[in-house]
Amino acid sequence: MAARAGRGPRGERGAQADRILAAARKSFAEQGYLGTSLRSVAQAADVDPTLVNYYFSNKAGLLKAALEPPAAFGEGIAEAARVPLEERGRAFVEAALRMWDDPATSEVLRSIILAASHEPFAMEQLRVVFSTLVLQVVSAGLADEEARLRAELVATQIVGLAMTRYIWAIDGLARMSSEQVVRLIAPTVQHYLTGALGEDPAAHG
Amino acid sequence: MAARAGRGPRGERGAQADRILAAARKSFAEQGYLGTSLRSVAQAADVDPTLVNYYFSNKAGLLKAALEPPAAFGEGIAEAARVPLEERGRAFVEAALRMWDDPATSEVLRSIILAASHEPFAMEQLRVVFSTLVLQVVSAGLADEEARLRAELVATQIVGLAMTRYIWAIDGLARMSSEQVVRLIAPTVQHYLTGALGEDPAAHG
Repeated sequence: MAARAGRGPRGERGAQADRILAAARKSFAEQGYLGTSLRSVAQAADVDPTLVNYYFSNKAGLLKAALEPPAAFGEGIAEAARVPLEERGRAFVEAALRMWDDPATSEVLRSIILAASHEPFAMEQLRVVFSTLVLQVVSAGLADEEARLRAELVATQIVGLAMTRYIWAIDGLARMSSEQVVRLIAPTVQHYLTGALGEDPAAHG
Repeated sequence: MAARAGRGPRGERGAQADRILAAARKSFAEQGYLGTSLRSVAQAADVDPTLVNYYFSNKAGLLKAALEPPAAFGEGIAEAARVPLEERGRAFVEAALRMWDDPATSEVLRSIILAASHEPFAMEQLRVVFSTLVLQVVSAGLADEEARLRAELVATQIVGLAMTRYIWAIDGLARMSSEQVVRLIAPTVQHYLTGALGEDPAAHG
């Protein structure tokens, strides 16, 4: 599936490829594309530089592979999208928190967001991932003609939660328990999924 | 006021300082702190390198000044915070859209966010600005004991809107009219300001 594409071969060779990818993510996020060299990545991953070319062909191929979200990301969203509609808002928030609280997923998501902040290619990759792994999946589970709009509104709330709580680590948001975050944010996501869009939520029974 | 501090002197010299700051923001956002030199900034701003030292002392001083949000940012939030409480959700969303639709403001906000993505110092600056110019102002206008929490919830929604619509330019969100954005998002912000937190908004009359 898309989320596995470009992650490099599995098994022993996969372990090396994954080490290279981890080093590449760190370098792309911190040094940018121009500041990253196949040699420096190979050195950080403690592998022979020729292996980087062997697995990822060139720097563009390495960046593309480094920015592939982990399989757990797409799977987590797809799973939440199968939860009964009236409970799905909570499911999406819980899935987002699980991904961001799990270093294996959050490290990659963070790298994608940071790299996208200053690499046009990474930004384009983020748009594609967002459209295919997030918006398509979320909207597919919705029946009405506003499905895509509802998915994008859900995205505004969950992206803002991730940015303020995990990337910027703002005050109380970073220290809040997952339970409290779900309690406070899930109703908004549920409103975007099934509520009367554009009308004062509090005015509806 | 805080939002003016470090913007350099006004008048003729201010014009040079502002040119230096504009070049510095671009460089810090694209090249990072390490990739930025006072010389390269002076060159991009077309001023003598000694002027950069004269106005900003050193690279740390230049970064701090470059990441000061424009006065219009703090003023826009303060103004919206004075709108009657029952209309304030809409006022905050409209203020956010005005800032992001105005190149003079959005260019600086974008630089702060991009720089914060890979510069610890910039991230710390963003946290300070966020806490003092946003959370303090928004929560100050609220009476109840949950004021700070409400301000942080407002932030999750508005930051997510800015990221998806302006920074990532995701699909429909980027093409949506300001009027539609306000219609769709303002009710959520209003709910965070005055609604029953943690309860299904749609369940309340």
